[in-house]
Amino acid sequence: MIRIYHARILTMEEDQDIFDGEIWISGTKIQYAGPEKKEEAAKITWDREINAKGNLIMPGFKNAHTHSAMTFLRSHADDMPLLSWLNDQVFPYEAKLTPEDIYHLSKLAIMEYLTSGITANADMYLTPDTMIEASRDCGYRTTVIGAVNNFTQSVELLDEWYKKYHKKENLINFELGFHAEYTTKKEILEGIADLAEKYKAPVYTHNSESESEVAQCIERTKVTPTVYMDRLGIFNYGGGFYHCVHMTQNDLDIVKEHNISVITNPASNLKLASGIAPIDHMLKEGINLAIGTDGPASNNCLDMFREMFLVTALAKYRENDASAVDALEVLKMATIGGAKAMNLTDCDVLAEGKEADIIMIDLNQPNMQPIHNIQKNLVYSGSKQNVKLTMVAGKILYENGEFFIGTDAYKIYEKANDIAERIVK
Amino acid sequence: MIRIYHARILTMEEDQDIFDGEIWISGTKIQYAGPEKKEEAAKITWDREINAKGNLIMPGFKNAHTHSAMTFLRSHADDMPLLSWLNDQVFPYEAKLTPEDIYHLSKLAIMEYLTSGITANADMYLTPDTMIEASRDCGYRTTVIGAVNNFTQSVELLDEWYKKYHKKENLINFELGFHAEYTTKKEILEGIADLAEKYKAPVYTHNSESESEVAQCIERTKVTPTVYMDRLGIFNYGGGFYHCVHMTQNDLDIVKEHNISVITNPASNLKLASGIAPIDHMLKEGINLAIGTDGPASNNCLDMFREMFLVTALAKYRENDASAVDALEVLKMATIGGAKAMNLTDCDVLAEGKEADIIMIDLNQPNMQPIHNIQKNLVYSGSKQNVKLTMVAGKILYENGEFFIGTDAYKIYEKANDIAERIVK
Repeated sequence: MIRIYHARILTMEEDQDIFDGEIWISGTKIQYAGPEKKEEAAKITWDREINAKGNLIMPGFKNAHTHSAMTFLRSHADDMPLLSWLNDQVFPYEAKLTPEDIYHLSKLAIMEYLTSGITANADMYLTPDTMIEASRDCGYRTTVIGAVNNFTQSVELLDEWYKKYHKKENLINFELGFHAEYTTKKEILEGIADLAEKYKAPVYTHNSESESEVAQCIERTKVTPTVYMDRLGIFNYGGGFYHCVHMTQNDLDIVKEHNISVITNPASNLKLASGIAPIDHMLKEGINLAIGTDGPASNNCLDMFREMFLVTALAKYRENDASAVDALEVLKMATIGGAKAMNLTDCDVLAEGKEADIIMIDLNQPNMQPIHNIQKNLVYSGSKQNVKLTMVAGKILYENGEFFIGTDAYKIYEKANDIAERIVK
Repeated sequence: MIRIYHARILTMEEDQDIFDGEIWISGTKIQYAGPEKKEEAAKITWDREINAKGNLIMPGFKNAHTHSAMTFLRSHADDMPLLSWLNDQVFPYEAKLTPEDIYHLSKLAIMEYLTSGITANADMYLTPDTMIEASRDCGYRTTVIGAVNNFTQSVELLDEWYKKYHKKENLINFELGFHAEYTTKKEILEGIADLAEKYKAPVYTHNSESESEVAQCIERTKVTPTVYMDRLGIFNYGGGFYHCVHMTQNDLDIVKEHNISVITNPASNLKLASGIAPIDHMLKEGINLAIGTDGPASNNCLDMFREMFLVTALAKYRENDASAVDALEVLKMATIGGAKAMNLTDCDVLAEGKEADIIMIDLNQPNMQPIHNIQKNLVYSGSKQNVKLTMVAGKILYENGEFFIGTDAYKIYEKANDIAERIVK
C-alpha cells in the first residue's frame, strides 16, 4: 500500500474544489482520498509513504486519440504539403514496419506519455497484438482501437481482436474502429455496423478532419461523412469521432443523438493546416469532449499540456472572444471527458474504489507561481517539467525523471533509432 | 574557465550544421567552439569540466518582448473579455505595485526564463531601476525598454534612463520605447522622435496588435498606426514592433525601409483573441523576425518552446499550407533574430569572442527521439523539460532543475505570493 500525504488534491469530481489531504492506494485502486488521516495512517504498514510537500495530486490525463508507434517518423518529414507527406513519407515507410518494430516504437511513446502525466491512451495503429504487448510490459493502460480500411486489417480481424481483448484484463482494452470514411469502402463499413450491432459496441473513427475530405464525400454520396456513416447504422451504440474540424449543425445533432464523443487534436490540425475545430460550439451543445495528441508524425510531441493550452487559446481566437472555453472545461476534457470517451469510467476521478491512475504536479516551479488558481495554471502555464510522478493502476511508472517500465530508457531509444535508420534511411 | 565536452554543437551560424565537439568558456565569453581538442584541453586547469554526454549545446533563446513583473497576475484574470481584463483587473492592480514588488516579481520571471533556456529578455515595464536591479542580482541579461504613455513614465525619464543604462554594463541595457500609439499622445511621440534623433537610437513599441486598435487609429488620423508613427520620424534609426498582427503591405514597406524588427507573440495573440500575425509573408519580405512571450498575465507562461511551435503551426494554419515557415526559420527567430532585434549581436551565435549565453538540451528524453533532425525536434517537440543547463555570460544560472541566482527559489515564490495576496485579494 502507498500513501501520499501533505498534498493538495484535485479529485475532478463535480463541484469539488482543491483541498489539502492525502490519498491511499491499495493494489490498483484508490482506497481513500480526503482530508489528512494521520492517526489512522500511523496504524498501517505502508510499502511507501510519499510526502507531496504541498504539491498537487490529480487524475492522470487521458490521451483519447493517438498513433503511438509513429514515433519512428518524428521530425523526419515535416514542413511538407499534406499529400507529399502522406504519399511519399508516411505510407511507404509504414509498409516496412514489422509488428516487433511497433512494439518498441509504442514503448517510446508510452515513455513520453508518462513525462506528460498521461496515464492512458486510445491507440489506433496497425498491429494490436504487439501494441498491447508493449503496454502490458510497461504496465501502461491502453485501449487499442481498430484501424480497418481498404488496405489493412479486416472486419474478421476486428471481431477476433474484440473477442480476445475487449475488457479481458484491467490495463488493456480493445474497441471497434476504422480509419475513416474516405479510406474504407461501403462493404467494410457495413461489416463494422454488423459488429457494432452484434456486440452493442461503440465505434471510433477519424471524421471531418479536412475540408477536402468532407467535400469529396459530399460529391460521392451527396451527404457529409457523418450523415453517410450514420445511415449505415455504425454508431447506434455511440463511440468517438477524431478531429471534427468541419462539421455542420446536422452532423452535430447526429453526434448528440448517439452520444458520440468528439476527440479534438488541435496541434495536429494546425500543423497539417486542417483548421480549428468549433470547440466552443460543441461544448455549448453538451457534447462530450476529449483531447488527443494524434500521432507523433503529425504533432510531433505527445504532450497534454500543449494540447490543453491550444484547445482554449484556439477557441478564443476562433470565436474572437477572450472568454471562450474556460480553462476548467479544458481540464475536464483532458481527464473525465477523455475517460468517458475511452470507456474508462473507473479511471476518471480520485475517489474510493476508482483505479489509481494518478499524477503529482510540481507547484514549486516558477511557471506555477504565484498560486492564484491552480487549475488555470495547469492549462495556461503547465508543462511536462511539472510532472513529478505518474502512477498507472497503483504502480509508479515515472518519478523525478526516471522511468520504471521494466526496460532501460536508453535501450528503448537505441531500438527506436535502429528502426528509424533501417526504415527511413 | 569552463569546458563542456562530448557535445553536439549547434552554433546557429549560417550554413553550419550540427557537429560533435566541445566549447570553452573564459570569463563571460566563448573562447573556443569546435571539434574535440582533447590534448590541448588536458594542459589547461579548468574550474569545471562538464561531460555533455552527447547532448546539444546551442545559443540561448532571446525573449524579445515581455512584461516580466506581470507574474503577479498569472492565472488571476483569464477567460475574460479583453476590456474587462484590462480595465477591471490589470490597470487597477498595476497601480498598487511598488518598485520593490517589481524587483521580486521580475526575479520570478527570470527563473522561468532560465527553465526555458531563455538567456536574455527585452522587458517593457514600469520601473527600470528595480527591473535592472533584479537582473543584475540574478546575473541575468536584460534590455529594459521604455514604456512611456499618457499615464506613466515621461520623455524626460526616458532620456535619464538612456544616459544611465544604455550599454554601460555587460548584462544590462536600456533602449527607447513607448507603450503604443493608442495610449500615447502626439506631444510625447514627438519628444520620443527627438530623443531617437539625439541618440541616433532605435525605438520599440506595441503596434497593430488588435483590429480595433488599427481601425480607431485610421478613424482618428486617416492612416494606420505604422504610417502615423513613421510620419513623426520615430523610427529613423530602426527599432522593433511588437505583435504586428494587422499590417498592410504599405506598413510592411515602412518596416523594411527602416530595418525595423517584428517581434511576434503568438500565444498572447491567440489567448486575447487578437489574431494570427502574417509570419510567412513577413519572412518572405525579408523582415527580421523575433519571438516574445509577452507578459505572464496574457500568455500565461514564459516558454520559448511553446512559442516556437505556435509560430510555425499557426503559419501553416493561416496559409493553409503544411509547408509554410520551416522549423529552422523559427529556430533562427528565437535565437539570432531575437539577438538582432534586441541589439545583442554579441550574443547571437556560438563562436570565439561571443558572449557565453549558452544552453544544454537533453536529447536523452523520449520527446527528442529518434534523432532524425534535432532542429525540427526542438521546434516541434521540444519542451522545458529538455533544458538541462542555462548559462548567461559564462555563469551557470540553472542546471538540472536547480537555480543559481543568489536567492533561494522558495523565498522568491513566497515573496511573489505575498505581493499577489496584498494586491489582488
